[in-house]
Amino acid sequence: MALNDQWFTEINGDSGTAFSLKSRDKLHTEQTPFQKIDIYDTETFGKLMVIDGCTMLSSRDNFIYHEMMSHPALFAHALPENVVIIGGGDCGTLQAVLQHSEVKDAWQIDIDERVTRLSEQYFPELCSDNNDPRAHIHFDDGIQSIKQAEADSIDVIIVDSTDPVGPAEGLFTAAFFSDCLNALKPDGILVQQSESPLLHMSIITDMHKAMKKAGFKYTRTLNFPQCIYPSGWWSCTMSSVENNLTSLRENAIHSRDFETQYYNLEVHKAALALPEFMKAKLCNN
Amino acid sequence: MALNDQWFTEINGDSGTAFSLKSRDKLHTEQTPFQKIDIYDTETFGKLMVIDGCTMLSSRDNFIYHEMMSHPALFAHALPENVVIIGGGDCGTLQAVLQHSEVKDAWQIDIDERVTRLSEQYFPELCSDNNDPRAHIHFDDGIQSIKQAEADSIDVIIVDSTDPVGPAEGLFTAAFFSDCLNALKPDGILVQQSESPLLHMSIITDMHKAMKKAGFKYTRTLNFPQCIYPSGWWSCTMSSVENNLTSLRENAIHSRDFETQYYNLEVHKAALALPEFMKAKLCNN
Repeated sequence: MALNDQWFTEINGDSGTAFSLKSRDKLHTEQTPFQKIDIYDTETFGKLMVIDGCTMLSSRDNFIYHEMMSHPALFAHALPENVVIIGGGDCGTLQAVLQHSEVKDAWQIDIDERVTRLSEQYFPELCSDNNDPRAHIHFDDGIQSIKQAEADSIDVIIVDSTDPVGPAEGLFTAAFFSDCLNALKPDGILVQQSESPLLHMSIITDMHKAMKKAGFKYTRTLNFPQCIYPSGWWSCTMSSVENNLTSLRENAIHSRDFETQYYNLEVHKAALALPEFMKAKLCNN
Repeated sequence: MALNDQWFTEINGDSGTAFSLKSRDKLHTEQTPFQKIDIYDTETFGKLMVIDGCTMLSSRDNFIYHEMMSHPALFAHALPENVVIIGGGDCGTLQAVLQHSEVKDAWQIDIDERVTRLSEQYFPELCSDNNDPRAHIHFDDGIQSIKQAEADSIDVIIVDSTDPVGPAEGLFTAAFFSDCLNALKPDGILVQQSESPLLHMSIITDMHKAMKKAGFKYTRTLNFPQCIYPSGWWSCTMSSVENNLTSLRENAIHSRDFETQYYNLEVHKAALALPEFMKAKLCNN
């Protein structure tokens, strides 16, 4: 059956797959100095932001990604006071981070201010805490910012980036991870989106290797569904020098004073469970 | 971006989503007395079977579905000797069931013989055990077969069906579940594919209600990724009168004498973890 022009389609050429959402209207399109951003009004997934032809977030299912990029790292850390988000211009991860009362300062460093301005307009529900005095929204090069960050100053670094091509390519290298390690306190945690376990297993294994090469001792990949991303199955990968990434603040998770739609303690532990084919590729189990 | 005619696309109209696989060739098409079956040769997912326009299985990712439809139920049961599969004509679930040495007899009852004949031709790797003397492959109406089954005779019933429309609609009713309960031994387990947690939560909640209405005491939904199904996130739902569905034969899982690509003990437990929005809908937690 063929799709007519009422559908937005992301073709993922490498994997030979495509995902489409029925769209009522294209609300916005622009070429920024960094990338092309389109906003669609879909029939069933709310608003959809697309960057360089790739789906970034929808109103309907972004909660899974944003919760899994933030809560597991923050609840694995003993006292996450200083958090830096690289990328994350839509502010969804920032909002989830700010839900943690331990957080004193949360920096969001995205290279493209237009992502944030368009999110404020089309995803205002994600930007409700942008004026929180603990939130520091900067538009800058994340790689340079981490390189120049004070050593031993950050508790959690969250790399909420696009795919490892174009502006985000440098975020998937041992050199960047080495700068992260330097900026993190010894018990700090780095967490990065790490693509699809089904389609991009080599990216995940390469990320583990690069993190180890940079000097991190512990690495763990967490799995979760994400409908609008290729294969519908996504992951993030964490690393730390001193934190084993599996000792969670269980009481804090149970007594958290904010609501989640996806995350809870059981889901956190479940995300750490690796299928056999992933265990075979990742040596840290 | 538009897809040309080199792509097979499943449009899921209700959810406003579509999934496409790049296809080299359409290898086969036929209208059986029950449904239309197409076989494609995809560029990256191997062979693809499509029934009435809906993706059924691909060579590349069927392992997740078949393992999760079989191993959790069989390892939750104390001694699964007699297993009945309703649907499952591609023989992938049957093959996984036959890997369990406890199984003495496994019946596969699919209404459409052509599914099995085409699977033998295009998915021979799933049909390698069809001549196992414990395997009994019948082509018949699963609803009638369960209604006429001897009471208290079956350990595990696996409903490996298409979506709850057309020939499979009757498999999602309390009347069918009541017949299953009658055919199962008191500690028997029923497991049924139960669609997408993101897109079809009402089907899952209705299934729990119908299973309870039929007389089952315990019900549990297990989640797993399935790239080629709508949203890429799928589930199966189990029920039992006497088996709580969470006491697993852990030693047997660890010492199993067959290989899996997805399933292991951690993955089994992880699949039972429900995200917050599912917990809110399902009362049995």
